[in-house]
Amino acid sequence: MRRVAVISYGMTKVDKHWNKSLRSLFGEAALNAINKVKNPKIDAIIVGNMCASDLSDQNNIGAIVADELGLTPITAYRVEAACGSGGAALLTGFSLVSSGVYDVVMVGGVEKLTDNIGKMISFSLGKAADAEYELFYGATFASLNALLMNRYMYVYKTPREAFADFAVLMHKNGAKNPYAQLPFEINREIALNSEYIADPIRLYDCAPIGDGAAVIILCSLEEASKYTDSFVEIIGISGASDTINIASRDDLLSLKATVTAANNAYKMAKVTPKDIDVAEIHDTFTITAAISLEDLGFCERGKFDKFLYEGAFEPGGIVAINPSGGLKSRGHPVGATGVYQAAEITMQLLGEAGKMQIPNAEIGLTHNMGGVGSSVYVSIMKRVK
Amino acid sequence: MRRVAVISYGMTKVDKHWNKSLRSLFGEAALNAINKVKNPKIDAIIVGNMCASDLSDQNNIGAIVADELGLTPITAYRVEAACGSGGAALLTGFSLVSSGVYDVVMVGGVEKLTDNIGKMISFSLGKAADAEYELFYGATFASLNALLMNRYMYVYKTPREAFADFAVLMHKNGAKNPYAQLPFEINREIALNSEYIADPIRLYDCAPIGDGAAVIILCSLEEASKYTDSFVEIIGISGASDTINIASRDDLLSLKATVTAANNAYKMAKVTPKDIDVAEIHDTFTITAAISLEDLGFCERGKFDKFLYEGAFEPGGIVAINPSGGLKSRGHPVGATGVYQAAEITMQLLGEAGKMQIPNAEIGLTHNMGGVGSSVYVSIMKRVK
Repeated sequence: MRRVAVISYGMTKVDKHWNKSLRSLFGEAALNAINKVKNPKIDAIIVGNMCASDLSDQNNIGAIVADELGLTPITAYRVEAACGSGGAALLTGFSLVSSGVYDVVMVGGVEKLTDNIGKMISFSLGKAADAEYELFYGATFASLNALLMNRYMYVYKTPREAFADFAVLMHKNGAKNPYAQLPFEINREIALNSEYIADPIRLYDCAPIGDGAAVIILCSLEEASKYTDSFVEIIGISGASDTINIASRDDLLSLKATVTAANNAYKMAKVTPKDIDVAEIHDTFTITAAISLEDLGFCERGKFDKFLYEGAFEPGGIVAINPSGGLKSRGHPVGATGVYQAAEITMQLLGEAGKMQIPNAEIGLTHNMGGVGSSVYVSIMKRVK
Repeated sequence: MRRVAVISYGMTKVDKHWNKSLRSLFGEAALNAINKVKNPKIDAIIVGNMCASDLSDQNNIGAIVADELGLTPITAYRVEAACGSGGAALLTGFSLVSSGVYDVVMVGGVEKLTDNIGKMISFSLGKAADAEYELFYGATFASLNALLMNRYMYVYKTPREAFADFAVLMHKNGAKNPYAQLPFEINREIALNSEYIADPIRLYDCAPIGDGAAVIILCSLEEASKYTDSFVEIIGISGASDTINIASRDDLLSLKATVTAANNAYKMAKVTPKDIDVAEIHDTFTITAAISLEDLGFCERGKFDKFLYEGAFEPGGIVAINPSGGLKSRGHPVGATGVYQAAEITMQLLGEAGKMQIPNAEIGLTHNMGGVGSSVYVSIMKRVK
């Protein structure tokens, strides 16, 4: 098992990119990454994407992006695990390099949602849930998460304001991120008075709809210094699944796949949650953030609000959460999100995060989720030099 | 790099399975494979699928099938390279085992097309081509391949009958396959007089539309005998891409991705085309078979008809082609096809192919293609014991 390094990263701003196609978005992020390193001979591209078939009438995205970059005939294919597609692509790229099947692998994600009407986008995203037992009955992603949020507040007596205040923190972070879709600050009143999406979830509890592409380049740790002077190592990585429909679960207040993927990744990396300096977690909704912070071991069960108000999730606290602004403020280009997270953690560990920089970040974590926790991917990275 | 074995296989009949869902088809093939081996502890499922988002309103298929099998929280995700999805899933499973990330990986493919009207199915399949430069202008898959067939007959002066006679051979083979969708023989007249699909392609030049699922189970070669007494080794595997739209190519009569993937796989396996005893190749259309046989090194350029009439593609010839009946007769459940091929070659090498058995088959090859040769996967397997 070869050790694997991340030698470069690139991304586009998350936005409504009405003037850029699926392939041109990917090309922009990829060239950004390629231009940071010396003559990388890329052997394969693994691309995370969820909605291109529905919203751009395009499958076979691997060939599309290899062609766009002039890199045919290299191996290129798509990986899909709903909103966790980027994380699954990262695991695939890791194993292709680790096994020695390929030496240099580009892992990317791309999503183009906004050329469509909202109803079509919502329907496409809903396909991450169970088509036969959830989607068919009219459940949307927001409504499924609303069930979790109601349950959380009922069981733990958590004040509604705490969720709004998490959104406020995310926007405070995202305001410093040049790639963020919503790079502005908000306050508690704005969040609490925003329109209902699915009671109790309001607009500012939700990640926005946006387009974007992100790319990282992997190679074996041994060869990394051929390409660049500064790189990070992937020291832990894992994926896990859960029942696709939430009605089949024993407990709505813990997402089993996050617990499993995180524990496997911690074990592989030989670290504990306390060792993580910075994390990009999958906060599709504020309730997803609360449960995920607990499942990842960053916070006691049911005490998300207490930890939040103690500053546990800010620099100098237990772990700096989502300096990018997270899905809430950076945005959530679905199949690309997991690769954005990996690019952002790489940027942090290399000390290249500008105004977002967490001082002395040495170990970082990404947490990427598809469905309501039915497909989860966790990676742990460490600064090498 | 650990060596990788195939320890089991399972499949459903390819058919119009109106009474079985996506998940139940996969479950049937998977249990079939699981029940052949001793207590396999499966660590991950990689599933090839192209059309579920369009035709079953379902993404996140990895979680769907892990849930169906009661195997959560294992890692499970989908791989997509259009009709080459199964081959890409096999490469992914290979690298996950080879790297040591996982010990036992189920590689499967599933497709459910026939619950929809023909127009929707054709549109969904068309998304393997270039949505912006081909599909948008009304090109279908058959019409793109018709361009190749016209060109082939023009350049090489090949008689039209040769393509019909290849279809006759495929149906002769498929008539012996209990899993085939069209298990009956035809003759030249039936093929030549069948209705036009896209001139010069007629109905019997085309693979049918069908549903099905296939599964193989991989583990490291070292551990294979823990699970079963008889297994095969994957000694070569590779993928390759080409420009997605065929107008960008230098030559319509060779599919560059097949040449690249095959040469890489031959090199890795340290064999030549002459060493292959049996092959399952991707004959979406009879013209695809002709070009692929040449690109794989089984036949001289432009002499597909000469080799066909010399019996080169039958048992005792150069290489036994598609004893399953190929896409033409066994059927083409799109994202599952590459896994059917791997299951069929495993069955041949283990001597378990019944009436389809090629005597003394020791080395076999699979050739799986997405788009008009824009995503190609080749694997080479060898009997171990």
